[in-house]
Amino acid sequence: MSEHENSSQLKSSGRSQLRRRPGRGSRDRNTVNAILDEALVAHIGFIDAGAPTVIPATPWRIGDWLYLHGAANGRLVQLVGAGAPVSVSVALVDGLVFARSAMRHSCDYRSVVLFGTGEAVTDPASKSEALLRLVDRLSPGRSGQVRPPDEKELAATGVVRLKISEGAAKIRQGPPTVVDKDAGWTVWTGIVPVAMRAGSPQPAEDDDALAPPALWPWLRT
Amino acid sequence: MSEHENSSQLKSSGRSQLRRRPGRGSRDRNTVNAILDEALVAHIGFIDAGAPTVIPATPWRIGDWLYLHGAANGRLVQLVGAGAPVSVSVALVDGLVFARSAMRHSCDYRSVVLFGTGEAVTDPASKSEALLRLVDRLSPGRSGQVRPPDEKELAATGVVRLKISEGAAKIRQGPPTVVDKDAGWTVWTGIVPVAMRAGSPQPAEDDDALAPPALWPWLRT
Repeated sequence: MSEHENSSQLKSSGRSQLRRRPGRGSRDRNTVNAILDEALVAHIGFIDAGAPTVIPATPWRIGDWLYLHGAANGRLVQLVGAGAPVSVSVALVDGLVFARSAMRHSCDYRSVVLFGTGEAVTDPASKSEALLRLVDRLSPGRSGQVRPPDEKELAATGVVRLKISEGAAKIRQGPPTVVDKDAGWTVWTGIVPVAMRAGSPQPAEDDDALAPPALWPWLRT
Repeated sequence: MSEHENSSQLKSSGRSQLRRRPGRGSRDRNTVNAILDEALVAHIGFIDAGAPTVIPATPWRIGDWLYLHGAANGRLVQLVGAGAPVSVSVALVDGLVFARSAMRHSCDYRSVVLFGTGEAVTDPASKSEALLRLVDRLSPGRSGQVRPPDEKELAATGVVRLKISEGAAKIRQGPPTVVDKDAGWTVWTGIVPVAMRAGSPQPAEDDDALAPPALWPWLRT
């Protein structure tokens, strides 16, 4: 844990050592950030009353910080905001990998696992600003078009954040592995790519003059 | 924790109580199973050397058990297989929800959080059978077409499982919420549906006689 905070590489310690298939791992900050930015859901692990607890939440990134929000009196906000140790996992599945042997079947994926301790964002202006960035996470520029949070809404919502500092990305990509003992097994092999795609926008109100929100390029239609 | 093991409802205790928006929650086993069956990735939380640790893995279900696998000497297999307390989270994102106010933006989703203690599946026949079901998880009937695991492959791979017994599903679905104070804000509102979709199969070998694998109906093309 001796590297600089703003290093282009994430840090490693015992818990974040890449044990399995380290060749698939990366601590490059840009790689990690790109995966975090594309993930619509993160899974946040913390210890609650002695038991591991994992809950899903929409993550968003501002610089070197990963933000999460929830009800002000909820577990995520209370525990993570108080500085509890936390682990965050996101995974994007890019393909189903079909091999000749059962054990070489796999998925193409890009994942990130982070470790750290959370902190609460309590200043109302910072909270409001962060939550507007979350709105832009759904659609670029959206925050400028909608009613911003008011005092009461801000009080009901908690925002917490984790420094993106320790952890790693892991990426599997490429054709299925064939091993010698697969000879003679004749079966389709290859990749079936999968991706999150957007369908046709479904307006809630009847107003043809309003254009549906722009989408980020990673969410193809 | 007084209900029968084979109840149609999952159990609840303090840690699995639906605290936030209980109206979105369900303990119905069929609802939980359907979400687990569709999820290509689950996020497994356990405590490793005192710290919460969450890692992604492909889950598969056999009856009332959720299965996971990994390297035989990996953390997941070693800790969860030894009966460590575990929490498993899966989330399927179904839509982006655009409201008039920043704070009513949301996602449509179906998620499951489970709690329990793991156990190892060590009998080679049971391990092999379970791993073939994982292959069928990628494509129905695929396990009958590929080289099954041999003794050496089985020894290198650990299989663990968790009884699907305590936890809940949570589902958000429907139009954005409009509140009185949103009056006068004119902006597109509605849902942009999102879903995991399969693209064109990319064969690894040149053999037009072989048909690409069948896909489960939830993975639309």
